[in-house]
Amino acid sequence: RTNVQTEAKTWTQYHKVCLTINKNRILSLCPGASSTGATPSEEMNGTGNLMDFLDEPFPDVGTYEDFHTIDWLREKSRDTDRHRKISIKSKESYWELIKSLLDAWSGWVVMLLIGMLTGTLAGVIDLAVDWMTDLKEGVCLSALYYSREQCCWTSNETTFDDRDKCPQWQKWAELMTGHSEGPGAYVLNYFLYVLWALLFSFLAVSLVRVFAPYACGSGIPEIKTILSGFIIRGYLGKWTLLIKTVTLVLAVSSGLSLGKEGPLVHVACCCGNLFCSLFSKYSKNEGKRREVLSAAAAAGVSVAFGAPIGGVLFSLEEVSYYFPLKTLWRSFFAALVAAFTLRAINPFGNSRLVLFYVEYHTPWYMAELVPFILLGVFGGLWGTLFIRGNIAWCRRRKTTLLGKYPVLEVIVITGITAVLAFPNPYTRRSTSELISELFNDCGALESSQLCDYVNNPNMSRPVDDIPDRPAGPGVYSALWQLALALIFKIVITIFTFGMKIPSGLFIPSMAVGAIAGRIVGIAVEQMAYHHHDWIIFKNWCRPGADCVTPGLYAMVGAAACLGGVTRMTVSLVVIMFELTGGLEYIVPLMAAAVTSKWVADAFGKEGIYESHIQLNGYPYLDVRDEFTHRTLATDVMRPRRSEPPLAVLTQDSTTVEDVETLIKDTDYNGFPVVVSRESERLIGFVQRRELTVAIKTARQKQDGVVSSSVVYFTEDNPQVAEACDPQPLKLRRILNLSPFTVTDHTPMETVVDIFRKLGLRQCLVTRSGRLLGIITKKDVLRHMAQMMNQDPESIMFN
Amino acid sequence: RTNVQTEAKTWTQYHKVCLTINKNRILSLCPGASSTGATPSEEMNGTGNLMDFLDEPFPDVGTYEDFHTIDWLREKSRDTDRHRKISIKSKESYWELIKSLLDAWSGWVVMLLIGMLTGTLAGVIDLAVDWMTDLKEGVCLSALYYSREQCCWTSNETTFDDRDKCPQWQKWAELMTGHSEGPGAYVLNYFLYVLWALLFSFLAVSLVRVFAPYACGSGIPEIKTILSGFIIRGYLGKWTLLIKTVTLVLAVSSGLSLGKEGPLVHVACCCGNLFCSLFSKYSKNEGKRREVLSAAAAAGVSVAFGAPIGGVLFSLEEVSYYFPLKTLWRSFFAALVAAFTLRAINPFGNSRLVLFYVEYHTPWYMAELVPFILLGVFGGLWGTLFIRGNIAWCRRRKTTLLGKYPVLEVIVITGITAVLAFPNPYTRRSTSELISELFNDCGALESSQLCDYVNNPNMSRPVDDIPDRPAGPGVYSALWQLALALIFKIVITIFTFGMKIPSGLFIPSMAVGAIAGRIVGIAVEQMAYHHHDWIIFKNWCRPGADCVTPGLYAMVGAAACLGGVTRMTVSLVVIMFELTGGLEYIVPLMAAAVTSKWVADAFGKEGIYESHIQLNGYPYLDVRDEFTHRTLATDVMRPRRSEPPLAVLTQDSTTVEDVETLIKDTDYNGFPVVVSRESERLIGFVQRRELTVAIKTARQKQDGVVSSSVVYFTEDNPQVAEACDPQPLKLRRILNLSPFTVTDHTPMETVVDIFRKLGLRQCLVTRSGRLLGIITKKDVLRHMAQMMNQDPESIMFN
Repeated sequence: RTNVQTEAKTWTQYHKVCLTINKNRILSLCPGASSTGATPSEEMNGTGNLMDFLDEPFPDVGTYEDFHTIDWLREKSRDTDRHRKISIKSKESYWELIKSLLDAWSGWVVMLLIGMLTGTLAGVIDLAVDWMTDLKEGVCLSALYYSREQCCWTSNETTFDDRDKCPQWQKWAELMTGHSEGPGAYVLNYFLYVLWALLFSFLAVSLVRVFAPYACGSGIPEIKTILSGFIIRGYLGKWTLLIKTVTLVLAVSSGLSLGKEGPLVHVACCCGNLFCSLFSKYSKNEGKRREVLSAAAAAGVSVAFGAPIGGVLFSLEEVSYYFPLKTLWRSFFAALVAAFTLRAINPFGNSRLVLFYVEYHTPWYMAELVPFILLGVFGGLWGTLFIRGNIAWCRRRKTTLLGKYPVLEVIVITGITAVLAFPNPYTRRSTSELISELFNDCGALESSQLCDYVNNPNMSRPVDDIPDRPAGPGVYSALWQLALALIFKIVITIFTFGMKIPSGLFIPSMAVGAIAGRIVGIAVEQMAYHHHDWIIFKNWCRPGADCVTPGLYAMVGAAACLGGVTRMTVSLVVIMFELTGGLEYIVPLMAAAVTSKWVADAFGKEGIYESHIQLNGYPYLDVRDEFTHRTLATDVMRPRRSEPPLAVLTQDSTTVEDVETLIKDTDYNGFPVVVSRESERLIGFVQRRELTVAIKTARQKQDGVVSSSVVYFTEDNPQVAEACDPQPLKLRRILNLSPFTVTDHTPMETVVDIFRKLGLRQCLVTRSGRLLGIITKKDVLRHMAQMMNQDPESIMFN
Repeated sequence: RTNVQTEAKTWTQYHKVCLTINKNRILSLCPGASSTGATPSEEMNGTGNLMDFLDEPFPDVGTYEDFHTIDWLREKSRDTDRHRKISIKSKESYWELIKSLLDAWSGWVVMLLIGMLTGTLAGVIDLAVDWMTDLKEGVCLSALYYSREQCCWTSNETTFDDRDKCPQWQKWAELMTGHSEGPGAYVLNYFLYVLWALLFSFLAVSLVRVFAPYACGSGIPEIKTILSGFIIRGYLGKWTLLIKTVTLVLAVSSGLSLGKEGPLVHVACCCGNLFCSLFSKYSKNEGKRREVLSAAAAAGVSVAFGAPIGGVLFSLEEVSYYFPLKTLWRSFFAALVAAFTLRAINPFGNSRLVLFYVEYHTPWYMAELVPFILLGVFGGLWGTLFIRGNIAWCRRRKTTLLGKYPVLEVIVITGITAVLAFPNPYTRRSTSELISELFNDCGALESSQLCDYVNNPNMSRPVDDIPDRPAGPGVYSALWQLALALIFKIVITIFTFGMKIPSGLFIPSMAVGAIAGRIVGIAVEQMAYHHHDWIIFKNWCRPGADCVTPGLYAMVGAAACLGGVTRMTVSLVVIMFELTGGLEYIVPLMAAAVTSKWVADAFGKEGIYESHIQLNGYPYLDVRDEFTHRTLATDVMRPRRSEPPLAVLTQDSTTVEDVETLIKDTDYNGFPVVVSRESERLIGFVQRRELTVAIKTARQKQDGVVSSSVVYFTEDNPQVAEACDPQPLKLRRILNLSPFTVTDHTPMETVVDIFRKLGLRQCLVTRSGRLLGIITKKDVLRHMAQMMNQDPESIMFN
């Protein structure tokens, strides 16, 4: 009923503005795609069909073309119509009543299915990553499909102390040569580690390139854009789901500096899209589909961290565009189902829901807020550095030869990563294991190097007591290794994110923050221990208890760095709260998260996802950008003064031939209808597609409709109908009588608000009832980008 | 800039429709108010000034009249203007730059202040309620201002076993007669208990009646209405804050079946409003003010339960209307500050943040979902019963003599409550203590009657082990008392909520659910114990552990009942999650909450707050109501066919006298301006108030402006300006050139959506550029109510 006019032709004149959008630009996100010679939509016909309704029997049930924006108001009114029909039908018979009840419940069924599939996939991914990560170092002899941890669990001989070593688990060198020690064994292990890493990443990038180019990257920028009402066919298809799941395992196992959290959101959204196709309520309505996808995103984060509430808030704060209360409740349901499915699979083997479970025993002191805030500053700076560096590198990838060889790029980066990572025990293992160790408090039974504190043998204490804290040599060597790991992670992550493999940045960002935090934590701890008579450290150290908790610093650092990169706030704190399970530590986390956001915002308003959206030129109207300029609708509307007048139809003086010529000569998606060219009073809007179908049908089926027939959009039967010769063609039924209008004096801030809140595609501009022009969503975005560049300072105040 | 037209005159013709709104109807919410002979706005001049900007120097900085709706778009554009001015000024000097930074930070400062004051008030209320509740039974001899718990803490002689009795704490009978036992002492205690209760409630109702009529009730329905953009002067004033705080203590202490949670939200919002007046950014912009109030509501719930995340979600889900992301983040900050301030005051003496802290040791079994879902059904039925009963009673109060004697009503209800409550130990104590006991698991040291289980002396066990569960005689007598308490609470709560004292319904609802849940829990436990060989109870009971957790049933029941009454969902589960601090029990809670909501929704879509909003006829446009009827804008717009045409001005043919006559004869808030009466093409909208001021000023200051002068709204200088006699009056500057328009064919569902999302006050209706009529927010509400009554079944499907 509401129609569309996108000016693809005039649009391309504006390609200098960064918001230009066309297929080639979007494909260039995944540089390898174009080199296969086929566009993704061709390659992905299987999935493309999911969104393809061209076989729809009614021409009015419209479909959107690829890379077009949807009209939220229209989708909503279509859903209401559908609803009304069902509710009228349901009174006819019991069968219809049952059908209508099933329809009402289908939303919950979809959520249940999404939750279960997402949880299962997350569990499978976790298990597979565990096994394959360990495969780089060795193999379990008792069962080849066991990871090291599982292998040593089943071993009866192991005592708790050397749980990392058990006879069933053999490193490659030991298995091949029989020697587990010595330089020869080290080199062999090193070589095989790098070899496995290269193999995994080569497999990953090849699969992505050949089967599903859309499976690369984190997927969150694209999902944000899709949720805001953009169509990218195949981005959430079955094929993408399958390939992304497989390649995610390979990419994470290869030891690259990337995480699985962002891609899991993409995987969850693919699941959501898959189950949408089971119910016509969702598959045939792009607006309703997006409600399901929002909930799926929540389920994705829920399983990524084991934090259902955080997941819902993440979806609300970071990803979703239109988030009604009903969606909030359903998202929560999906997130919980997913979390419990994951727990039933129990991939971490500890019955815990959360990825990093921590328990701290010591309270924090007010003075500790100083290092926490410093960590926040570090997080903000890291966020700025990462975003600028990564965007610069991605831009380079798009414009130079680099983008032509995505496979080579992945191989090279994997090689560098593996070669540099192996010598350092903190980078050799998987990043999430590293974070887990850094978050953890040193208990009495902890065997980690980080917990190598000197115990005073003179004091007699119960066995399970926590040691006092003079650092041993292990801690000092760990500090050096951590510092090297920090630099390594910072540099390599900038180059890794955005390669043509699935790559999330939650885990690498958190790792950077956790390493920095742990270093600061140990420093503060040693300072407090050695200077426990200083006034600020008074009472911090008591016999038998920790002075401070270095693990808490790691957690605060991780939150700060993640916040600096993504600019998440509430959801970040809530996810961290769910990890610790106590409100005690919310204040440090919040202090760091706020500082980090402020510091990072001072250097640039956009988070990494918004930056990538801009880089790729997606038509995304951010809810958070405030438009504060004094421009009016008349400054933005098309046509401009120098351009030819708007292509319009008149209600009773256009012939069939005129219309056909107009359709042939232009590629606008729709045309306004006016009373007459003289008065220019707007009466409605007609869609190109419906006009074409209507004229074609009439020419075939209706006698007397010829090229010179007059097309009528008026209500009453025209008098000329009595006349003999060219039979008139009445098209009022395809006319949208309620096009959205604003006056030319409307301030653009109001127009932006209207587009944002009502999700319009276009809006007609009138003055005293006369049609003057049209504003499309892309016009609005282009104008906003122009204004932003003109006056970058204006965004400083929020 | 955007203007208003409310048709107060024609409006009153529609007073049969329940949505009619006028001062008398609103006042009737608090039945005693009218009996004082003065309207609240007269009584509350002190607070009314807070929102009174009539002394504003610029006539264009508009103010809203009492009981009018605000225009969100206009408020937003005013804020952008202000912003723009500051940001331009800030480039002029360093001082201006600092001022602009302070302005940008003022939002955070307001949140900090709100959090601190709300937390402090909540702490003070908790302490005072504790002391005064105990005062009904006895007094602490060592320090009169100690509550029983504090009194017995300080006593060294008490062992843990009889911690409820200590020599310093004396019941009234003991103190007066020296006998603590026997019928005489019992009667004296009984008498004094009732007397104190009557005294407290008499004080409370008198204070409310005399000083702040708006302090009555829970306040949440009114706050929802205010947040949706309605003006109720003085509702959030200083005076209301003070009186509500004091009377809340009195009301809760009197032992009436009411809670402090809802009123705490009102108190927090009063704090928010108070601090708004410190910053012109908030005090002069009704839209910005509402952002602060949303955050304040979150802080209120945060301190009510000690659940900051739940508070934010409550504000988001239940209370707020316009909740941008910036508000989410600030709400979270305010909620945390409030929670930590409360913890610093530590009114519960246990350093816990939460109101009911519980820890369970036993997992739950899948089969237990059956009783949990039954509890959900009970909660839904209770919700329906409560809402219907309470609304019927409140309607009776408004229409019959009952409403004339609010003080008497409170006294009588208090008397009945106290007389019936004293004999039963479960109703004698405060309701929150009762809930706390019901939630708790029976530990080894628990002395409560509910934990009177028979220990098997034959089995030797460690001391701290939890006993097996054959119920002792204490449990059976407790069950009877609980059953009686349940009936009592159900009946009395229906009559209590809505009296002219501060009264929340969270606690009474939770109490009903907790009692029912505990009874079911004990029943299931005993069944599992006695039939532990049945297949479904297999493995439930193990030696040394509980079979089931009756406390969990109480919690699930409480959630179900609260959900049935308020229809909260996510926020409810999150609040409960914060109480238990573990994700383990989310599934039972969610199962119960969902069932309860579905059962209650089957009987009627509205929760208690929406029902009270409807009862009082507030103009509240619910975001959740879906409008699914096929009506068009033309069916709703005014004037109707039979009515006189719309009062309009023409752009260049109306004289000053005509305008003055129009202003005198009508009381519309604004007038559309058209090109001419013949063409009826709309060019703008002018506000009544601005028109009056402009004409008055012109008559005084501008020479030659007389009654026969023509008023011009055109852009160009009219040719007649050269003519001699009546000098023209140019008023284009007060003309709003971007009035919001829709066509007459626009479906009402779209119009409703536009009103809801853009927060409009009115919208003009056109056809082909011709002005046809106007739709105001109240027209929309009236139409929605009419449609709802016509076809109540249509709301069944969601």
